[in-house]
Amino acid sequence: MLGALHLDPQAQEPLYRQLYRQLKDMILAGLLSRGEKIPPTRELAGSLGINRATVAAAYALLEQEGLIRGHVGRGSFVAAAAPAGSAVDWESRLAGATGEIRSWAGQARISFVSARPGEDLLPVEEFRACCREVLDSGQVAQILQLGSPYGYAPLREWLLEQARAEGTALPGDEIVVTSGCQQALDLLARVLVREGDAVLVEDPVYPGLRDVFRRAGVRVIGAPVGPEGIDLDAVGRALEREAVAAVAVTPSFQNPTGETMGLEARRELLRLAQRAAVVVIENDIYGGLRYEGAEIPSLKQLDTAGIVIQARSYSKLALPGLRVGWVTAPRAVARRLAEWKQVADLHSDQLSQAVLLRFAASGRLADHRRRLVEAGRARLRAVLEGCARHLPAGTRFTRPQGGANVWVRLPEPLDAERLLGKAEEAGVSYLPGRLFAVQRAEPAALRLSFTGLAPEWIEEGLRILGRVFQAGLERQRAAEEAGLAPAIV
Amino acid sequence: MLGALHLDPQAQEPLYRQLYRQLKDMILAGLLSRGEKIPPTRELAGSLGINRATVAAAYALLEQEGLIRGHVGRGSFVAAAAPAGSAVDWESRLAGATGEIRSWAGQARISFVSARPGEDLLPVEEFRACCREVLDSGQVAQILQLGSPYGYAPLREWLLEQARAEGTALPGDEIVVTSGCQQALDLLARVLVREGDAVLVEDPVYPGLRDVFRRAGVRVIGAPVGPEGIDLDAVGRALEREAVAAVAVTPSFQNPTGETMGLEARRELLRLAQRAAVVVIENDIYGGLRYEGAEIPSLKQLDTAGIVIQARSYSKLALPGLRVGWVTAPRAVARRLAEWKQVADLHSDQLSQAVLLRFAASGRLADHRRRLVEAGRARLRAVLEGCARHLPAGTRFTRPQGGANVWVRLPEPLDAERLLGKAEEAGVSYLPGRLFAVQRAEPAALRLSFTGLAPEWIEEGLRILGRVFQAGLERQRAAEEAGLAPAIV
Repeated sequence: MLGALHLDPQAQEPLYRQLYRQLKDMILAGLLSRGEKIPPTRELAGSLGINRATVAAAYALLEQEGLIRGHVGRGSFVAAAAPAGSAVDWESRLAGATGEIRSWAGQARISFVSARPGEDLLPVEEFRACCREVLDSGQVAQILQLGSPYGYAPLREWLLEQARAEGTALPGDEIVVTSGCQQALDLLARVLVREGDAVLVEDPVYPGLRDVFRRAGVRVIGAPVGPEGIDLDAVGRALEREAVAAVAVTPSFQNPTGETMGLEARRELLRLAQRAAVVVIENDIYGGLRYEGAEIPSLKQLDTAGIVIQARSYSKLALPGLRVGWVTAPRAVARRLAEWKQVADLHSDQLSQAVLLRFAASGRLADHRRRLVEAGRARLRAVLEGCARHLPAGTRFTRPQGGANVWVRLPEPLDAERLLGKAEEAGVSYLPGRLFAVQRAEPAALRLSFTGLAPEWIEEGLRILGRVFQAGLERQRAAEEAGLAPAIV
Repeated sequence: MLGALHLDPQAQEPLYRQLYRQLKDMILAGLLSRGEKIPPTRELAGSLGINRATVAAAYALLEQEGLIRGHVGRGSFVAAAAPAGSAVDWESRLAGATGEIRSWAGQARISFVSARPGEDLLPVEEFRACCREVLDSGQVAQILQLGSPYGYAPLREWLLEQARAEGTALPGDEIVVTSGCQQALDLLARVLVREGDAVLVEDPVYPGLRDVFRRAGVRVIGAPVGPEGIDLDAVGRALEREAVAAVAVTPSFQNPTGETMGLEARRELLRLAQRAAVVVIENDIYGGLRYEGAEIPSLKQLDTAGIVIQARSYSKLALPGLRVGWVTAPRAVARRLAEWKQVADLHSDQLSQAVLLRFAASGRLADHRRRLVEAGRARLRAVLEGCARHLPAGTRFTRPQGGANVWVRLPEPLDAERLLGKAEEAGVSYLPGRLFAVQRAEPAALRLSFTGLAPEWIEEGLRILGRVFQAGLERQRAAEEAGLAPAIV
């Protein structure tokens, strides 16, 4: 490798600097890798036909820069921080903490991991038909061209009409199409909060909501979730004490708890927010998936003060792989969202927007939703019955009326994360509560997402989980007794 | 409106506070709008049947909070800063400066505004065929489910294979699919730079590249662009003087200048960056659109030090409305990009990824590119000939060999932005140079994007522009003469 050195005695640059520079390049380029021994000064001087002092001077510069390190009696070694093969130390360069990439599929035979519709409930044929209708329409050339950051105009107009008809859009409201609810949250974080602001969320909460604000440099404050949704006393206290810029809530079938705010709780949250002049971000991703009980108006529908911004998506209803969501917000906010959208990715994919419009406007979405609700009802009953029947005494679990998730709290001192390995060995997976924590860790909690499994699988899965958790309790008791009882040998 | 006030003498809350709170809510909700007169204390006390001092106390609290303002002799008026209809003052709440939403279509008959393929060159039939093949394949259920933040696996594998075959991907490199090059830049800004870092870009530059870094709180430093692309002396100086985290360049057919870095310039840029251990972001969006001359390896192909991250997309080649681009980067960077991608929008639309894979893997993309290159060659010749023939003496313009843009510098003191109105009246639109400036404003410059127009329209457009600019010069001269000549009356 050192054969690549070419020193030019005629050059203006002194020989020792030429040598220093070339060696440095080699080290930074990874051509000399960390830990590699470099030739002694005498040897290199001899092979290059130059003075030994010249080599020593070059080595001194390299050592000063931390690129090589001399060990008495052993010679000098490459010490560059750059990983072999790269002149850039990527690990130190990359911004932000290493997060986790969430996995959406459990490895086990029966997976309660994913809060999405089951494969058996995907509207594959309807989707094919919608695509074909779009392809046969006169829209194709328009779809293939660059679009507006606000969204594909026919879809936006249709959504706005729907929103007006159901009382979701106030007179000054606009719609911005996003790549799913996740992007809606990301754009809202960019538009509405500044570093150092606080944002109030439910605790436990969907990690994608928590992380979007954390990564924006915002203090994320969690308020507990009860049978009436987010704890309003906690909200009130936080609004008094902290510089809260926004409250972000999922009032219907919250993820992960499945809890839903009643009408009065919704009104009270709006009153609290209005009094504090705080923005309410309503994540309404599960709103259309009620299996039992009466519909409750959304926060956006109840808002008379113009403080609610609502994010919705079709992904839980129909087509998770097509990334189309939307935000309904006052015009000034919509305008700013569209500006950020243009910076983020210009605009959302137009083919999917056109296909989803077709899906919704043709009535297929409503038909499909009816099927989803019917299937969801059976699955919800199966999961609640299974929990009651199979989980150990002392287990508590929520009783949602829709959505995709049930939150289970095992009796203390069981640890849902530590039991997961045993559960997976027995063929069942779930997500441990830790993943959803904001401030309050609940080691005994876990999330069961039930919409992806037929009722008989849900029953079977809970039977297995019951056995695993019961065994855990018994091991625990045995250990305690062993620890408490005097050792008899 | 004040009829809605309901005071409860039995309540624990004093009457003056009940009144204050209800009025405040009304003001914040916009039910009482700014500038509206509120009743004198005596009048309101009378109609509510309460003491006048109670009303005065409530008013005092409202005034203290800036919600109402008293004018001696005229009474009190609502002074809330909240816009009518909202309890939140959106304008003061929204973060960041109001940007511009770029328009992609000129209003004029002949538009040199948009750097995208013309409608006549969209592969509409091929697109339909690809969609149908995807729909008929066994992939549909997979496409409809949530996907990986790295991208749709079959597309990613295909892209990686291609990148390895052409020497773009180094052994440790990975591919992350993004929603177009714009999202690639946005994710890179989030991953690679910290607030206060500097990023070096070409000046003038594509606004979407400049803005993505500016909005990330980064100092964007511009280096001039010449016939060999970015000015390497300016790059060298900036790397010495500033804490530059990355150099972001478009080495082939740069937007807006159309200039291309030669092989030696590319090597030198890599040497400079490597020596400074600085990341190079290569925006290779136009790389596949060379109409004349020999291909030049990309920076990523020339990189031996593992410092180049390359962003590419199909949008300029084929289907702008389908948002699919990708980044080729060292594994550690790819991993971090995927994490941010999950926060930004979970993953890119899978239908479009599958359709574009089909488009590329079936050979249709290569066929289509040949047609684009052929058409582009004729359009490039037309624009260069038109500039030479029609624009006023003293005009300078670049001579690209590909891409979509020619950069025109009118003779001083013409101002391209001020002449735009006249040009549009005459039926031709373009983008003034100002939009692309980083530090160096070039009021005499404008961008002509030529790929959207057939050669005869290009010729006609330049004939008109020549006339408009010539008239501008003559007006200018007349004004100067009038100013210089002594007034003879």
